[in-house]
Amino acid sequence: MAEQHLTIDDIRQMDRHYRANLVNSLSGIKQAMLIGTQDVKGNTNLALFNSVFHLGADPALLGYVQRPVGVSGDSFRNISATGVCTFNHVHSGIMEKSHFTSARFPAEVSEFDACHLTPFYLDGFAAPFVQESNISMGLELVEVIPVSYNDTRIVIVRILHVRLGEGLILDDGNLDVNLADSIAVTGLETYHRIEKLVQMPYAKVERLPDFSS
Amino acid sequence: MAEQHLTIDDIRQMDRHYRANLVNSLSGIKQAMLIGTQDVKGNTNLALFNSVFHLGADPALLGYVQRPVGVSGDSFRNISATGVCTFNHVHSGIMEKSHFTSARFPAEVSEFDACHLTPFYLDGFAAPFVQESNISMGLELVEVIPVSYNDTRIVIVRILHVRLGEGLILDDGNLDVNLADSIAVTGLETYHRIEKLVQMPYAKVERLPDFSS
Repeated sequence: MAEQHLTIDDIRQMDRHYRANLVNSLSGIKQAMLIGTQDVKGNTNLALFNSVFHLGADPALLGYVQRPVGVSGDSFRNISATGVCTFNHVHSGIMEKSHFTSARFPAEVSEFDACHLTPFYLDGFAAPFVQESNISMGLELVEVIPVSYNDTRIVIVRILHVRLGEGLILDDGNLDVNLADSIAVTGLETYHRIEKLVQMPYAKVERLPDFSS
Repeated sequence: MAEQHLTIDDIRQMDRHYRANLVNSLSGIKQAMLIGTQDVKGNTNLALFNSVFHLGADPALLGYVQRPVGVSGDSFRNISATGVCTFNHVHSGIMEKSHFTSARFPAEVSEFDACHLTPFYLDGFAAPFVQESNISMGLELVEVIPVSYNDTRIVIVRILHVRLGEGLILDDGNLDVNLADSIAVTGLETYHRIEKLVQMPYAKVERLPDFSS
């Protein structure tokens, strides 16, 4: 493949939307995750994120990036107030509804209602799950880390509940994300189905394939 | 789909490997990214990560999670010493080689050599790119954020260089990640090809589809 080289100056001089698309694409393939919250009065909120990352398995910790402004600020206000949220995998059947939770609805409108998704509750847990999702988690807030460089926040949460379709956990503990039909995002708004290629063995030096051939 | 519910106590009582697979699967679909570094003597290191996330487009910032222990610690030591690293998308043609960079090679062995991947340099930039990758970035260290809760670090880096195959940037700035053949990871070691479903429009309330039908 012939090659192209861009420098930081090229990126700085780009049109704002073009740059946003490019830089959001460079981080590669990301999950589409709906974050469900409610305020102290029980008004629900649902917002699409693709910055969720694994932070640790024991304790089971995840993180996500909270931007400084925008509609998704409701998620952060609610998590701060109630201490909890849900993460819900998006599958192709709810892809379009999930995408449109990003629209700037009036403050009094819940994205659950506007986008025809169904809130579901576990007893004693003050955040709504997405009934239609095949893989969901209930999480509690652990730590909010400010990133001084660009005024974002990294929100660290701990898994308290997992709610998923039967048969999605494989014998080794892995989830069958293909069967769950979880979808991937690149850039800001391009969605993809995933097709399993292979489960590789644990990488050991003694098992190294002969790459010289 | 019939449903299953797991609590934090169920997760705590799982076998360690089973839990690691489950919790790593819950974060959903992730990118496979090779991080290239070298020490101050020029000894190269290459390590596979799937915790890269987008932090901001202007300035163009990415983050990744550095675990407290393990072979990947070399990446962090090198980034701390030289101030720079590269991120390189993994495609299916280098999937197996990339996976095996995770093996615990002796300290004096470079994963570039052991896994038959080719280091490539830009003038004046002290970290090796992966020649075989279709989408690569050269980045400089901006901030290291300790996560007190589980002794990990979040490493924030800024894009200085982008190196990619010609024709991969679409008219709107998005990358054609399908043409680049970038692959996805779920859990710790299950790899997937992505197949584009749709590029959705920017989500505006006025464009909301009729979800009631």
